[in-house]
Amino acid sequence: MNKLVGSIKQAVIDSGLKDGMTVSFHHHLRNGDYVLNMVMEAIAELGIKDLTVNASSLFDAHRPLKEHIKNGVVTHILTDYMSAELGRFISAGNMANPVQFRTHGGRPCDIENGTTPIDVAFIAAPASDCMGNCTGKLGKSACGSLGYAMPDAKNAKFTVVITDELHPYPLTGWSIPETDVNEVVVVESIGDPRGIVSGTTKITRDPVGLSMAMTAVDVIKASGLLKEGFSFQTGAGGASLAAAKYLKDVMLREKIRGSFGLGGITGYMVDMLNEGCFDSLMDVQCFDLKAVESIRDNPRHCEISATHYASPGAKSAVVDSLDVVILGATQIDTDFNINVHTDSNGRIMGGSGGHSDTAAGAKLSMIIAPLSRARLPIVTDRVTCISTPGSTIDVLVTQKGVAVNPKDAELRQRLIDAKINVVDIHELKAMAERTSGVPEKPAIGDRVVADVIYRDGTVIDRICEVRED
Amino acid sequence: MNKLVGSIKQAVIDSGLKDGMTVSFHHHLRNGDYVLNMVMEAIAELGIKDLTVNASSLFDAHRPLKEHIKNGVVTHILTDYMSAELGRFISAGNMANPVQFRTHGGRPCDIENGTTPIDVAFIAAPASDCMGNCTGKLGKSACGSLGYAMPDAKNAKFTVVITDELHPYPLTGWSIPETDVNEVVVVESIGDPRGIVSGTTKITRDPVGLSMAMTAVDVIKASGLLKEGFSFQTGAGGASLAAAKYLKDVMLREKIRGSFGLGGITGYMVDMLNEGCFDSLMDVQCFDLKAVESIRDNPRHCEISATHYASPGAKSAVVDSLDVVILGATQIDTDFNINVHTDSNGRIMGGSGGHSDTAAGAKLSMIIAPLSRARLPIVTDRVTCISTPGSTIDVLVTQKGVAVNPKDAELRQRLIDAKINVVDIHELKAMAERTSGVPEKPAIGDRVVADVIYRDGTVIDRICEVRED
Repeated sequence: MNKLVGSIKQAVIDSGLKDGMTVSFHHHLRNGDYVLNMVMEAIAELGIKDLTVNASSLFDAHRPLKEHIKNGVVTHILTDYMSAELGRFISAGNMANPVQFRTHGGRPCDIENGTTPIDVAFIAAPASDCMGNCTGKLGKSACGSLGYAMPDAKNAKFTVVITDELHPYPLTGWSIPETDVNEVVVVESIGDPRGIVSGTTKITRDPVGLSMAMTAVDVIKASGLLKEGFSFQTGAGGASLAAAKYLKDVMLREKIRGSFGLGGITGYMVDMLNEGCFDSLMDVQCFDLKAVESIRDNPRHCEISATHYASPGAKSAVVDSLDVVILGATQIDTDFNINVHTDSNGRIMGGSGGHSDTAAGAKLSMIIAPLSRARLPIVTDRVTCISTPGSTIDVLVTQKGVAVNPKDAELRQRLIDAKINVVDIHELKAMAERTSGVPEKPAIGDRVVADVIYRDGTVIDRICEVRED
Repeated sequence: MNKLVGSIKQAVIDSGLKDGMTVSFHHHLRNGDYVLNMVMEAIAELGIKDLTVNASSLFDAHRPLKEHIKNGVVTHILTDYMSAELGRFISAGNMANPVQFRTHGGRPCDIENGTTPIDVAFIAAPASDCMGNCTGKLGKSACGSLGYAMPDAKNAKFTVVITDELHPYPLTGWSIPETDVNEVVVVESIGDPRGIVSGTTKITRDPVGLSMAMTAVDVIKASGLLKEGFSFQTGAGGASLAAAKYLKDVMLREKIRGSFGLGGITGYMVDMLNEGCFDSLMDVQCFDLKAVESIRDNPRHCEISATHYASPGAKSAVVDSLDVVILGATQIDTDFNINVHTDSNGRIMGGSGGHSDTAAGAKLSMIIAPLSRARLPIVTDRVTCISTPGSTIDVLVTQKGVAVNPKDAELRQRLIDAKINVVDIHELKAMAERTSGVPEKPAIGDRVVADVIYRDGTVIDRICEVRED
């Protein structure tokens, strides 16, 4: 007995997938993923229509979805992130039903509580045995953690593992156990390694970015949180990585041993683990090869499910114990609301991912952003889209000063005592406008193309149509 | 924020436990367990009544349950195994409602599909952090795998971890993640190490047992299953361990590399892993200190959940891929039905555990038993209680010959070709009766004291009252 079937199409047939059902995908193969496209092509060939696609993130590699939307194969999209090409297509009003954006914690919560049931989950697995015990840590397409795929596999009515490397049974160190898997399909390749993981990500060389990163570390020191047991998450952007680098230097110099690093994990966080800054890494997604090697070889580099990472429906998640998170923003307003969904024209080009979840959980939620980008102010009266509510953001670090949310009076005083250049956020906005001018309001229509669903299940904002020029 | 509360009683109060609800326990601390008694005492002091206790196994250490039954605190028991002291109490008719016996696979299946919902699960965890990430691999009360506790923690409405060793957050290598845990209670001691794990279990020195063990290995060789990729489970009884020892010698001599060893794991199976007989061990419960050390230190010694071990409700379980299992029996009848629930007087003194699950899953299910024990024949016309149906048993090995289930004609021929002493099971029965006499039928009443629920959910047999002498 084994669960191998000859083709993706056969697995779709066996799954009983019918018009109107929901299929799910995860994004650990990122822009190198072949699986979503292969599956959707098989589904389209079978003539199945009116599907909901629930994908933890969607990248430009998934552009064939545009055709499936036009042809009525896909009529609903649920995702946590959408890159610019598909975003522009959605923003242009090409889909009848609004996209539902969730957060990386809200998505597994709604899968588990039955709000967004999955009929068939497709798991892109770099290594699997014939019964479906599978992992992302091994194989030619190794991507490390499969954290976002775990709730899908567990809760879907039917789960298909798609792999390009079959291992003898039982594969040990599984991310997903055979108990959750109905069928296994072996294909030539599940993805393009160049798109799955980058080489070692480089920190910024931009002096503005480096200056902000240094200020960010000064803020962390002044906050009082940087002590024995410190925990930390940062993004993979250049300035965030630079902050991690400076933070490491401080922790080593001052002999501060933290407890854990969290998140999407880069080689910089692996260095911090290996050099003793943290006791462990909690990893829902690996960003580079160094992270993949580390999660494979180091038992203190732990794979966590999306639920364990950030679900507000779990009895607790790691974000609830997080000290400091450094996050980015495409816009921030004077109420500290953050936009990471749309560009300056109001077009979709991102999504919350874990932004809202970590901001809500961390004791100190810090945004690093320059005052303006490409001559457009980042600090504004009102963000075009509220991705993360200002009530969960503590501090904005820019190259011209640091703004503290008025709710954090004690933090503000600590920063002032530490001689950090604390300025009012309205002042930062005025500076940005003096440099870059007041931006024109983008020409946004009335029709809703996407709902932004906060981690508590409420619709925190709606994104409206932006017609093509 | 953390989940620590000051006492078990406080956790019970916080859980909202009320009359008529269900509490659950697991048995990795075996006869050394303090947790069930501590919890039930707190519950009794709070005046809560009419509870269902769902415990993966019950041992003599749990004798205070007798008082809780008499006092109406506990009115229903669900378990997979019950040792003789409590068994005798139940058999004597001291409980109004029949005990429900399940198998180690049927129990998690029914927990997960909602047949036997759990209101409050109590997890005895040898090490935990303040958020409930916990493991059995560390701590002064280390017991190794927590496999049976995983479905309880996952599916209970409220989960309480009880530990005697608090670790810094986050504890890595968790068996159960914080996502499943509501509260953590730190107590002085969760169990008596002498009862939790034995020292290295000794194989039998009894020549009858050794002779049967050698025959068992001859049968395995003759079956054709002993080849590259071979998988194996055996019990912790003396003759079963001796069979493992002889099997290891054969595998090493003939350079046969198996795939996995399964089960409750002993040091003998660890030796087989370390000497290259298996690529991995799949471990739902550790029986001795050597197994505990191995599961902690060797990544190829894998902890599996009870679901992954044996659930018929899972999309597959490891038992489905098992080649050979060696099992014991208190009785076997001429239809190959097995009794592991009652003694020769019909009194409860055991339970299926994983017996039925592995028998159903394995390609070769072998019983090792002497023809008689304490002057009572083991082979009989009809077992007093059907624990495992004869349709899932392939072969009986005794010191006087090997009986093959008539359904296995090909296997029978293979054994004959290998010059194994194959005899009809009726002949074995006759031999047993010639030696030990025909036993008197035990004086069993009409009142049902326990239902034996097979892994498919059907009641396979009922156990009736046996009055005290």
